[in-house]
Amino acid sequence: MLTIYSDKHKLRNSKTELVGGLLVEPFERPSRMEHITARIKETGLGEMIEPRDFGMDPILAIHDADFVSFLSTAWEEWKATGAKGEAIACTWPARRMVQICPNDINGKLGYYCLATETSISEGTWEATLASANVALEGADRLADEKVLFSACRPPGHHAAIDLYGGYCFLNNAGIAAQYLLDKGTERIAILDVDYHHGNGTQDIFYTRDDVLFISLHCDPMDEFPNFLGYANETGEGAGEGYNLNFPMKPGTKFDEWRANLKQALDRISDYAPDALIVSLGVDTFKNDPISQFKLESDDFTTYGADIAKLGLPTLFVMEGGYDIGEIGLNTVNVLQGFEAG
Amino acid sequence: MLTIYSDKHKLRNSKTELVGGLLVEPFERPSRMEHITARIKETGLGEMIEPRDFGMDPILAIHDADFVSFLSTAWEEWKATGAKGEAIACTWPARRMVQICPNDINGKLGYYCLATETSISEGTWEATLASANVALEGADRLADEKVLFSACRPPGHHAAIDLYGGYCFLNNAGIAAQYLLDKGTERIAILDVDYHHGNGTQDIFYTRDDVLFISLHCDPMDEFPNFLGYANETGEGAGEGYNLNFPMKPGTKFDEWRANLKQALDRISDYAPDALIVSLGVDTFKNDPISQFKLESDDFTTYGADIAKLGLPTLFVMEGGYDIGEIGLNTVNVLQGFEAG
Repeated sequence: MLTIYSDKHKLRNSKTELVGGLLVEPFERPSRMEHITARIKETGLGEMIEPRDFGMDPILAIHDADFVSFLSTAWEEWKATGAKGEAIACTWPARRMVQICPNDINGKLGYYCLATETSISEGTWEATLASANVALEGADRLADEKVLFSACRPPGHHAAIDLYGGYCFLNNAGIAAQYLLDKGTERIAILDVDYHHGNGTQDIFYTRDDVLFISLHCDPMDEFPNFLGYANETGEGAGEGYNLNFPMKPGTKFDEWRANLKQALDRISDYAPDALIVSLGVDTFKNDPISQFKLESDDFTTYGADIAKLGLPTLFVMEGGYDIGEIGLNTVNVLQGFEAG
Repeated sequence: MLTIYSDKHKLRNSKTELVGGLLVEPFERPSRMEHITARIKETGLGEMIEPRDFGMDPILAIHDADFVSFLSTAWEEWKATGAKGEAIACTWPARRMVQICPNDINGKLGYYCLATETSISEGTWEATLASANVALEGADRLADEKVLFSACRPPGHHAAIDLYGGYCFLNNAGIAAQYLLDKGTERIAILDVDYHHGNGTQDIFYTRDDVLFISLHCDPMDEFPNFLGYANETGEGAGEGYNLNFPMKPGTKFDEWRANLKQALDRISDYAPDALIVSLGVDTFKNDPISQFKLESDDFTTYGADIAKLGLPTLFVMEGGYDIGEIGLNTVNVLQGFEAG
């Protein structure tokens, strides 16, 4: 299996994540990707290549232009205030407040953010662009390769039309999906197996029927992102019926998770898409430090094979997974399971 | 002038404020009140007395019961997670997300919060209740005293019906206003002279004509709370015309500020309320560390006298002001200016 990878992910190297009332080293850190690429080499999964630069058009095809402009300048604007730390949102348009973007950088951060754990740091934008290109290169080669792995970092599935957070800035899977549609593909399914709900992807395609979005995740009643991912969110307008959430309780084991996956795969099969994009988070692993599902490493191989049975051209796009020691094993297990499936 | 004061303000002694991407000692700290009470004693402004306990009814008369319940248990719920830091919101219902309160404490914090600079710490709730009682004791004695100072801490004007933030948890001025109305007063004017917009007070009374709310503050385009306080927010329904905002640009000096105050006082005079509540923040001072207006200490005396010319029973309720060294001088200058005016 071909992997698309860019060294530029290392430019996303924030020093602070707000969690538990403290600023700590971010769980989403460069060594995650180093362990994944090491495992790819160790297992001989296949070649790793750099992406081309696809420019801004495929990004602006799904993201708000003012939001993209904000992301591209946020670090410079923040630095100009003389702030000593990284750029963290402090206030936001809460209930009954007005939904307008203020002039000052603190206001802008809050307007465009959905969660403060994600600091904007030097190099974040460059790494984010490279990550989008990693997804786009995978999408561009999908017709030829049939299956690829876009080793995206930073991840993307929490990034909405005009919101960042949850370690995500641009929605890599969404950008890849729109690129395929714009190249003539008629229908895409996005299957999000990350532990956290893919709120950004849902937001982007919620009113559309050319992208079926299905997410398996921890119940937002109990887990980030808390404010999207409920079972009653089924799409709107033309998109009604094309959004499907499978929230599961903390502590969920593979049997229950796989039963929901089977329902998801059945729905994808009925939809008969031209291609599948998998938002691949491996934070469902039992030892993940910030998650509460109970998958074993072998379970990742099993469900990779389950997904393969759809027989669809499939682009895997990397999302979350924070058990650094096992992230390579679990990620490559899915890909190897798919190849063997 | 009689001052209402409670030592319990010291129980609000949070160790962390998120600002500039760092966790620092909060600007809203106990020594603020110590400098105010020291100045009251030094100048012989008048007696200081403790408030009685007015119970929960006057609080629940304007705040959402689930919100109040959340505030009363938030610290215990947070501690039970094993978090090492103070309770800081990390995620919230951003645009196009659902407006429901999740089960887990992280979700609850985000649901009920409007800004992350405000950590919930041990003792916060006890101090908050005492601060509300300080406001209520002042309201209860207003008929007899004609003018009083409720030395509230923590402050209140950013606390909305069901939102905390901006160092505020319960809206002391709003609670006092509602108490007076419930005791038979027909019309109240609240004049908010804090540097920051009194978004919480506006939120509480936005649809009502029995409370006229007027705020002089830095333009939210440029300053916290960013998402409320614009000039076009004039009230809704029965409240249309009973909300008046005077946003001013960073750098505003006293001449311009006083011209706006004159307009505010004229409007209050036209409204002919039975009583006036002043949300007294002195962070308009030129040396305030987090604010950008340019008032001199003598200007506080001048505008205290301006307010006195309304000839109304007047309850001063303490809000912001973060230049610790001068907060006592500037606060008491307003009160002495009023007495002499």
